[in-house]
Amino acid sequence: MKEISKLMNYRTDVKVVDATLRDGGLVNNFRFSEEFVRDLYLANIKAGVDYMEFGYRADKEMFDVNEFGPCKFCEDDYIRSIVGENHTDLKIAIMADVGRCNYKNDIQNRVDSPVDLIRVAAYISQIPTAIDMIEDAKKKGYEVSCNIMAISNAQESEVKVALDLLGESPVDVFYIVDSFGSIYPEQMARIADTYLNAAAKYGKKVGIHAHNNQQLAFANTIEAVGDGVDWLDATYSAMGRGAGNCAMELLLGFLKNPKYNVYPVFQFIDKHMDKLRQEGAVWGYDLQYLLTGLFNQHPRAAIEFTKNKRRDFANFYKEVLSQE
Amino acid sequence: MKEISKLMNYRTDVKVVDATLRDGGLVNNFRFSEEFVRDLYLANIKAGVDYMEFGYRADKEMFDVNEFGPCKFCEDDYIRSIVGENHTDLKIAIMADVGRCNYKNDIQNRVDSPVDLIRVAAYISQIPTAIDMIEDAKKKGYEVSCNIMAISNAQESEVKVALDLLGESPVDVFYIVDSFGSIYPEQMARIADTYLNAAAKYGKKVGIHAHNNQQLAFANTIEAVGDGVDWLDATYSAMGRGAGNCAMELLLGFLKNPKYNVYPVFQFIDKHMDKLRQEGAVWGYDLQYLLTGLFNQHPRAAIEFTKNKRRDFANFYKEVLSQE
Repeated sequence: MKEISKLMNYRTDVKVVDATLRDGGLVNNFRFSEEFVRDLYLANIKAGVDYMEFGYRADKEMFDVNEFGPCKFCEDDYIRSIVGENHTDLKIAIMADVGRCNYKNDIQNRVDSPVDLIRVAAYISQIPTAIDMIEDAKKKGYEVSCNIMAISNAQESEVKVALDLLGESPVDVFYIVDSFGSIYPEQMARIADTYLNAAAKYGKKVGIHAHNNQQLAFANTIEAVGDGVDWLDATYSAMGRGAGNCAMELLLGFLKNPKYNVYPVFQFIDKHMDKLRQEGAVWGYDLQYLLTGLFNQHPRAAIEFTKNKRRDFANFYKEVLSQE
Repeated sequence: MKEISKLMNYRTDVKVVDATLRDGGLVNNFRFSEEFVRDLYLANIKAGVDYMEFGYRADKEMFDVNEFGPCKFCEDDYIRSIVGENHTDLKIAIMADVGRCNYKNDIQNRVDSPVDLIRVAAYISQIPTAIDMIEDAKKKGYEVSCNIMAISNAQESEVKVALDLLGESPVDVFYIVDSFGSIYPEQMARIADTYLNAAAKYGKKVGIHAHNNQQLAFANTIEAVGDGVDWLDATYSAMGRGAGNCAMELLLGFLKNPKYNVYPVFQFIDKHMDKLRQEGAVWGYDLQYLLTGLFNQHPRAAIEFTKNKRRDFANFYKEVLSQE
């Protein structure tokens, strides 16, 4: 059982990362209005959020700029159009996917960029390329984190090797990612233990990015923070791919550091989030996501089920099982 | 950290209680069709659910039978019209509220009733009357549990005294009830410890009934079962007052005892639950419930907010704070 004296207090090392534009952008092809992005930036500042992720730095030779809003590419000039020189305590992050980001060309030196943190995302088989990206970003002066995705489908021994490889790299933060929303809090405690041991050995920090397929995104996040994980991803109204993420409004309600303030989050939600849903964006817990989470599968079949407005969950149950 | 060998296995002592008609009935004044109730009974049998709660045994001198469906009163004849003599492994439960049930008159001997379990519900100030009800039900031959409601507003020392009083009574099960959905899993672990210690001393079992205000109903339930709590309340599609309960479909997906089968739950949901929502029943997690949960308040203001179809969460935040 966790010590109550610790539970009543707070760790100043905790960092909250707003991933609304990035994970939420997967729901609406990153078509956020400029007003949305600017209001979100201002809300994050008022709420005491530590990092705001603006989206992906996707390769324009791979992705058509006409098909996506600007947060898919997150050019420095675009970010500057919102934040200027960003003379605030809120730091700016972007995500760089292994295999989908031309990092050598498209990431400039930090001194020439409004970005502070590069979040490298990789499957466990892509760690060597991830490390090349980490080294590149570090040389350019950035803080760097690394998301190892889909670990619920990897072997524990592989995860340990990946953490050793990353441990030897200059990365600052290892991220636990529950890509499929299949991890229970009792498993999260063990995974956090593995990551925290590696982090202690190599002088790194640990973060968590959760999905809400089984209504456990918030529960897994607070399990992890109770175990010693410091970097916490959340999104406004839990907006994110499929079942969505840990809700910012739940997380800031829970955290006890007085620098955090949940009220601006509600103001932002009032103004923007129902509108976004009315415009057609669909996300959040529903039974199709429960099923892919329960059976530890990628949510793509559930996303397709949602797009087709199907409600025959019993049939979907059989489909999910027959995909094994 | 919990032992992985225990997590992979299951305890045969675990009992799943379907509270859909009772807690869900609070949402639609217990106006369930006969087909709904019969299909639910059959689904519970197929799913391996241990107990099905049919509703309240409310006093007809206090409540108008024209205002509520039959599950508000749960007369033995009504239950028999659904289950006959119930020659199945599924046991039948009803709830008897302190102060709202004329138990001496309205509860017959078990041999003359289809009911197996009387669930006494009391606030902590009502324990003496609860004990009178427990003794009455025990004399009549029933299994008996007791829900101590709203413990998040009670002192730990009071809860311990209540458990000692109930420990000396013939009750079979102490129920942990998170009435306001305000309890975090790390607190649940401590509460479960308190209840389990008292249960061990007096030879009782412990149960949990959770609410989903902070999307923690399922998380708190699996925290509790991991700690040794055996009786688990859940409802189909999490139907229940306000933010709803722990979802049966999440719980049966999680439990590892092969006697449980989640597929009939999805079949029932496909047939009935969207229809119930289309007919006007509203329940489930939303930000107004988050706020009453976060500030440890009864959800009645949030239920009113929902009824009025308000979406101004920032104003509601201020209202909730000013009610303190």
